Amino acid sequence: MAKVHNYSAGPCILPKEVFQKAAKSIENFNDLNLSLIEISHRSKDFVDVMEEARSLVKEILNIPENYDVLFLQGGASLGFLTAAYNMMRSHKRGGYLVTGSWAKKAAKEANFMGESKIIASSEDTNFNYIPKGYDLGDDIDYFHVTSNNTIFGTQIKEFYKGEIPLVCDMSSDIFSRKINIDDFDLIYAGAQKNMGPAGTTLYILKKDILGNSTVPIPTMLNLKTHTEKDSMFNTPPVFAVYTSMLTLQWLKGIGGLDAIEKINMEKSNLIYNEIDRNPLFSGTANVEDRSNMNATFTLNDHNLSNEFEQMLNDANVSGLKGHRSVGGYRASMYNAMPKESVEVLVDVMKELTTKKG
Amino acid sequence: MAKVHNYSAGPCILPKEVFQKAAKSIENFNDLNLSLIEISHRSKDFVDVMEEARSLVKEILNIPENYDVLFLQGGASLGFLTAAYNMMRSHKRGGYLVTGSWAKKAAKEANFMGESKIIASSEDTNFNYIPKGYDLGDDIDYFHVTSNNTIFGTQIKEFYKGEIPLVCDMSSDIFSRKINIDDFDLIYAGAQKNMGPAGTTLYILKKDILGNSTVPIPTMLNLKTHTEKDSMFNTPPVFAVYTSMLTLQWLKGIGGLDAIEKINMEKSNLIYNEIDRNPLFSGTANVEDRSNMNATFTLNDHNLSNEFEQMLNDANVSGLKGHRSVGGYRASMYNAMPKESVEVLVDVMKELTTKKG
Repeated sequence: MAKVHNYSAGPCILPKEVFQKAAKSIENFNDLNLSLIEISHRSKDFVDVMEEARSLVKEILNIPENYDVLFLQGGASLGFLTAAYNMMRSHKRGGYLVTGSWAKKAAKEANFMGESKIIASSEDTNFNYIPKGYDLGDDIDYFHVTSNNTIFGTQIKEFYKGEIPLVCDMSSDIFSRKINIDDFDLIYAGAQKNMGPAGTTLYILKKDILGNSTVPIPTMLNLKTHTEKDSMFNTPPVFAVYTSMLTLQWLKGIGGLDAIEKINMEKSNLIYNEIDRNPLFSGTANVEDRSNMNATFTLNDHNLSNEFEQMLNDANVSGLKGHRSVGGYRASMYNAMPKESVEVLVDVMKELTTKKG
Repeated sequence: MAKVHNYSAGPCILPKEVFQKAAKSIENFNDLNLSLIEISHRSKDFVDVMEEARSLVKEILNIPENYDVLFLQGGASLGFLTAAYNMMRSHKRGGYLVTGSWAKKAAKEANFMGESKIIASSEDTNFNYIPKGYDLGDDIDYFHVTSNNTIFGTQIKEFYKGEIPLVCDMSSDIFSRKINIDDFDLIYAGAQKNMGPAGTTLYILKKDILGNSTVPIPTMLNLKTHTEKDSMFNTPPVFAVYTSMLTLQWLKGIGGLDAIEKINMEKSNLIYNEIDRNPLFSGTANVEDRSNMNATFTLNDHNLSNEFEQMLNDANVSGLKGHRSVGGYRASMYNAMPKESVEVLVDVMKELTTKKG
């Protein structure tokens, strides 16, 4: 069968070797003649998986000793709540940078046990830029940001550096570029973009945030519960953790963040250059805030959309439809997407211009 | 390689055809030339999986129209909290039958937003029986029970029938026997015993419990959030839901609960008959409360344990070690375990007696 160029925004493309190894583990894991998913999570074979996954995260992101790494459940949506519970201090108030729908949902959860303060929002222009030059004030316990906004194709290029603890939902661009972990007190990220399949959520936390919340926290939402049990307080999502480990092994193998950042830059330059060059298309995001993960664009003449979509289909380009709240197209170019797939898309865009030019 | 007789208490054995189909889906799902785990959860292909999984649950358990079915994340441990949040009414108090470690943890979470009242407990004898003849009083909003206690090998044979809403953690014996859904207002169950791999949690709820809690509920813990979005409020744990669907297809295919209840009874009779007959072994659970899923027993003479364990090993019997809080052995005989594997275990027990008799 023809290769599909998978632009799905998440769950999304992962490396082919990861699919092969994950599939094998379901039938016979570690030559035990047992499936990965039928062994005890307390067995040495699985404990080794969890430990390797955690240690690959630390190694790839260059995480200092005073941080801990967890693989939990619930998605970033439960992370909104978990983050707020664990970060509330004397003000019982979190500051939120509202750069998209997920950021807005994160802010909402802080009102459950405390209060959220909207530091800045780009909702007035349908989130097509990242607000800058805002004032945090002196009445918040932490500052929450969303590093990449899949729906709107924007990305934070420079993170806040200051005294207020920084919390980041990094679901859609973690492991795509180098970051300085010291800038953050808490990072959480659903796995299903650059790390693995849906079903596990990564938490990276500075150890000294633990035990300092000023609000009572239910057992499962208290990060201390999980750090004390090495991310095995209850049965972990075995398959999602294993497949994340495989993806991280792949990333390390190709050269880690140095290598992938370069490749991701090449891919996003390819598509943005074409969007800017091609008179038939327009980008939707503010140029300086453009995401290197999700490029959002529209056809200037909507009458061409049927033809363009037929051409995409003929070229085996899948998952390019934009989110309903933006419309148009969204090219999600996560780590595992080869440059070749972006070239195929760009060729289709060029071809449409040749036809119509 | 020799067949392994997998007695793991959970995650645990699933049908071989489920492993084969699940593995295939990781490399090429529905002949899309894409992996199950790289497609959008909003694609028709995955929405169909979620809908088939939910509808198989309804069909197999004979669930009436006034109930809804959800596949969420977080395990039963998050279910403890979710159940309490959703069931609190005017008393702001839940009644708990404490029949094991998990029941005790469930009761603890109710104290977060309300109060738990211990209706009865068997902790005084290390949970080796199911308390009966208790009085619920008139000051609780719901009555919470744990249908099967994996660690202690006990199981509730008759459920409470009365006016007070019944909530049940059915993680370790759901789909193992016929139950009357009308007896329950809310059932939750981690998938990793009879339903699928670790990573998803099943909720079965009477629709009229929704929206009636007297305490505020965070978004992700409010069951209404999820029923309103057909179990797709946020990205579901795709692989765990798909593999659960495959396991439910298998269960339906072999004849559903009528068939499996009979097989499970045969398997548990085999092992309990041997435990009672064989002078070298003793069961640890009260006879009338014995679980048909997990048979717990000890060697009367601990000096024989090395020899017994070597014989188990030679026979490829795996995962029989009892939980540390009970010791001895635990034979977990979930739906997918063939009767043949129980016969192998019983043969080893008989052989030990012949040697030592």
